[in-house]
Amino acid sequence: MPVHRVGIALKPDKPEAGPVLQELIVWLRQRNREVLLDPEAAAVCPECGPGRPRAEVAAQADLIVVLGGDGTILSISRLIGSREVPILGVNLGGLGFLTEIALPELFAALEAVLKAEYSVSHRRMLTARVRRATAGAGEYEALNDFVISKTAPSRIVELETLVNGEYVATYRADGLIVASPTGSTAYCLSAGGPILYPTLPALVVIPICPHTLTNRPLVLPDSATLEVVQRSPGEDVHLTVDGQVDVALQHRDVVVVQRSANVIRLVKSPKLNYFELLRTKLRWGER
Amino acid sequence: MPVHRVGIALKPDKPEAGPVLQELIVWLRQRNREVLLDPEAAAVCPECGPGRPRAEVAAQADLIVVLGGDGTILSISRLIGSREVPILGVNLGGLGFLTEIALPELFAALEAVLKAEYSVSHRRMLTARVRRATAGAGEYEALNDFVISKTAPSRIVELETLVNGEYVATYRADGLIVASPTGSTAYCLSAGGPILYPTLPALVVIPICPHTLTNRPLVLPDSATLEVVQRSPGEDVHLTVDGQVDVALQHRDVVVVQRSANVIRLVKSPKLNYFELLRTKLRWGER
Amino acid sequence: MPVHRVGIALKPDKPEAGPVLQELIVWLRQRNREVLLDPEAAAVCPECGPGRPRAEVAAQADLIVVLGGDGTILSISRLIGSREVPILGVNLGGLGFLTEIALPELFAALEAVLKAEYSVSHRRMLTARVRRATAGAGEYEALNDFVISKTAPSRIVELETLVNGEYVATYRADGLIVASPTGSTAYCLSAGGPILYPTLPALVVIPICPHTLTNRPLVLPDSATLEVVQRSPGEDVHLTVDGQVDVALQHRDVVVVQRSANVIRLVKSPKLNYFELLRTKLRWGER
Amino acid sequence: MPVHRVGIALKPDKPEAGPVLQELIVWLRQRNREVLLDPEAAAVCPECGPGRPRAEVAAQADLIVVLGGDGTILSISRLIGSREVPILGVNLGGLGFLTEIALPELFAALEAVLKAEYSVSHRRMLTARVRRATAGAGEYEALNDFVISKTAPSRIVELETLVNGEYVATYRADGLIVASPTGSTAYCLSAGGPILYPTLPALVVIPICPHTLTNRPLVLPDSATLEVVQRSPGEDVHLTVDGQVDVALQHRDVVVVQRSANVIRLVKSPKLNYFELLRTKLRWGER
Repeated sequence: MPVHRVGIALKPDKPEAGPVLQELIVWLRQRNREVLLDPEAAAVCPECGPGRPRAEVAAQADLIVVLGGDGTILSISRLIGSREVPILGVNLGGLGFLTEIALPELFAALEAVLKAEYSVSHRRMLTARVRRATAGAGEYEALNDFVISKTAPSRIVELETLVNGEYVATYRADGLIVASPTGSTAYCLSAGGPILYPTLPALVVIPICPHTLTNRPLVLPDSATLEVVQRSPGEDVHLTVDGQVDVALQHRDVVVVQRSANVIRLVKSPKLNYFELLRTKLRWGER
Repeated sequence: MPVHRVGIALKPDKPEAGPVLQELIVWLRQRNREVLLDPEAAAVCPECGPGRPRAEVAAQADLIVVLGGDGTILSISRLIGSREVPILGVNLGGLGFLTEIALPELFAALEAVLKAEYSVSHRRMLTARVRRATAGAGEYEALNDFVISKTAPSRIVELETLVNGEYVATYRADGLIVASPTGSTAYCLSAGGPILYPTLPALVVIPICPHTLTNRPLVLPDSATLEVVQRSPGEDVHLTVDGQVDVALQHRDVVVVQRSANVIRLVKSPKLNYFELLRTKLRWGER
Repeated sequence: MPVHRVGIALKPDKPEAGPVLQELIVWLRQRNREVLLDPEAAAVCPECGPGRPRAEVAAQADLIVVLGGDGTILSISRLIGSREVPILGVNLGGLGFLTEIALPELFAALEAVLKAEYSVSHRRMLTARVRRATAGAGEYEALNDFVISKTAPSRIVELETLVNGEYVATYRADGLIVASPTGSTAYCLSAGGPILYPTLPALVVIPICPHTLTNRPLVLPDSATLEVVQRSPGEDVHLTVDGQVDVALQHRDVVVVQRSANVIRLVKSPKLNYFELLRTKLRWGER
Repeated sequence: MPVHRVGIALKPDKPEAGPVLQELIVWLRQRNREVLLDPEAAAVCPECGPGRPRAEVAAQADLIVVLGGDGTILSISRLIGSREVPILGVNLGGLGFLTEIALPELFAALEAVLKAEYSVSHRRMLTARVRRATAGAGEYEALNDFVISKTAPSRIVELETLVNGEYVATYRADGLIVASPTGSTAYCLSAGGPILYPTLPALVVIPICPHTLTNRPLVLPDSATLEVVQRSPGEDVHLTVDGQVDVALQHRDVVVVQRSANVIRLVKSPKLNYFELLRTKLRWGER
């Protein structure tokens, strides 16, 4: 799939990215590529062209360069749908789990993509449907995780969990995380979770501060249907999508999580394989 | 200290406690003890006498019988101040860490207290003072724990921590728990904390879902002064006292935690020592 | 596949199993099934027939009834090879993760198997090959796990780990566990591991008491080739197979772990699905 | 207490320490201090003087300079007994929890000690007495920890534990660690333990890979008497002292752990307080 149009998405509040952004745009235009800027990029470089809604960038680009933060990749991912567009994640500051390409490697990596000499890591998304007795429910996609948790400071939410219709457990906890392998190195890790190899066809379910001390992370085949029933009457419980979108849940709402049909294509760094990334981010090898 | 006036505090919403409450009151009046009912007890047995504010019960009783829930003991404890009144904690349902006397043992335990043939477990309280640049701060007491956490579903709060004026760490986490030994078997345990022997002169500091994977619970002498600085601008951060009282914290508020001068006196079960309680509650000995 | 010959394997040192063993043998012979006893069964009931080596039982039976312990199933599993023989695991004492059928259900379960009205849980085995510069290495199969650990009481072994030839980490730890999903509820769980759904095509790698606090369980696709290089010169390091077989490892030995071609068929309890088993064994739902 | 005689203990197998050792000895002799070399130091610098047994160095020096390794400090500590001699721990390689003074700070730190312008951190030792039905038991001191564990690769030891004569639990585990606050940052940390402030009058008990998932580290007052009964018949169980000395335990041996009367005096780094050391060693502040 030849790359004609290159979308550029920028992490918000990064005016210092101006020079690299301009250099990138010049570089792409010299190579006769059309450039689609998201509003954040256009705000930092107004003379570079108009900003378009991210959804439009996601719908039209043949390649998306994210100057981020992992958060910017998460936010773009939810807009891609079933399109098979590669995402090149460049970290502006520290190395990210998703933005694994450093600024100095940017142009070499781009050149490789334009020549179709690159490989991608396929990251399957998760989907959550909120089932509600009355109307008003919705459907959401996540690259990292869905979190169901209570927002009031008093500390327990009761969540009944079923897998393929079979009852698993009723968690009494601060909340519950359902993550993809990609999300296993995000919030999951803080909650004590394992690391899932990115292409493992699995999802992981982890209670946050569970009352039952024997609860452990549960790794399920991604063909499973997971249902989480909100069992706390009158409580302020939310579903949070990739740490970015919040949806209020009502008593007895059921959150149904499954693998999505959509798969994100992350351009791999030619310099850093997955385990190198893990070692660097988690500082393995040092005490 | 002879027992003339016996306060009775009841867990809210326990109408089924009516019979045992009446029996208890008759038993005490037959032995010429004056009975002080809290509003919850008076609501369940209006003919037994008027309800008085719990603060008044806590201020005047020579002995307080709590028909609870551990929560009812927590709530009474914060009203006792420096008075040396024993608390007899009776569990209405399951065994509690603080309500360790079962209903069938109630009268034997009471008889022992009236004859002064009993022993108490001394549980030191913690105090937290909120220091604020402008006015409006307050001071709080807790038997179990103080929790500083963010209530919005997006997930990080930044808390700078100092011990005796020395910088310890800046936790990026869902929150931070500071607990007494008594509180170490409550929320702390869900957050992965150790169990502190109840009379250990110590406090324990535990981050909730910390970003730095090497953070561990920190056990400090209770002579230490712990300062926690709220470093998340514009965030909805709260201080929660014993899971029951919430106080909004502003950016740069400092929560100063120290041991309190106040010590709670829990009447010990003659049947169950501390480790038996632990084994029973945590189901040790079974996988 | 009709069942003509039924093997019976008994947990060692269980003379009290005599009556049920006799009853079982009578029941099978009344139904014209040939019975093959392992040496442990023959020892408890010498008049029931001769004992045959377990390897012979495993090679000839159309169905194997294990009166165990999970350990007895582990031990039989390593002898089955590629045969598609179902194993009916009956627990003589407490419920096991592998012996999930209780004694009172034995005959109903057997009847169902003879009528071919039953289902099995497929449990893929792992294989480990020890690669050594000089001669003397071997190959092993495990249903639960391989553990590489140091036996001397001083406490560190250095294990270099690669996945598909890519370097992962050098663990400095008490040891390393590589487990199948089936093994995730065994030793892994004590070491802090997650629970893997039994049919997940995965394996899990967990260091035991690692020096680097950021090491976490790693869940890999079972298509991966895992190499563990013994990097502790002059140390007493062993490979332990399913907790039952020990193999001394030399400095620079490489243990290569892959999924096995062999799959064990456990007859499912009609009464207890996987999550019920988990809840019962781990006492979820109770604090 | 004026410093006349300075003991020097060197980490074994450190020939590269020769130059700094010579410089140190010259520096001390210029200031009219007598120098006592341990055998390791004498081996690296034979012309500097004769080596004396470490026990003699520990018994006669007014100050001991350890060029180490935390292990060298552990080994010296067990020889000090009740003497109030300060120990100056210098790390030859990476920063240690006990050797917190870096080589470039050595002479400034020494000068301060000779002028009595320094402070020490008091670290109480633990004592373990092995009680045995027959003869042959012994008594041991540890600065960090006692570990009771099984050396055979099969994986369970049964350890019955009592505190002040009250039954606590029977651990079925790989082993049990009993550590001082000083030892809480050593092996304990790998086993999932909390960090105890060094002067806390406490000890911590942690099972290694316990079978009961609800077992948690237990922090006890150091006035407690802890008894650990070896309940695994016929097994190869050892008591390990500070990771350096191994003692075989017999079935039914009782290891009685108490605080020791002996207190080690570590010269504090003028540059690094306890929490700085912790942050540096554990890399807090980084993910």
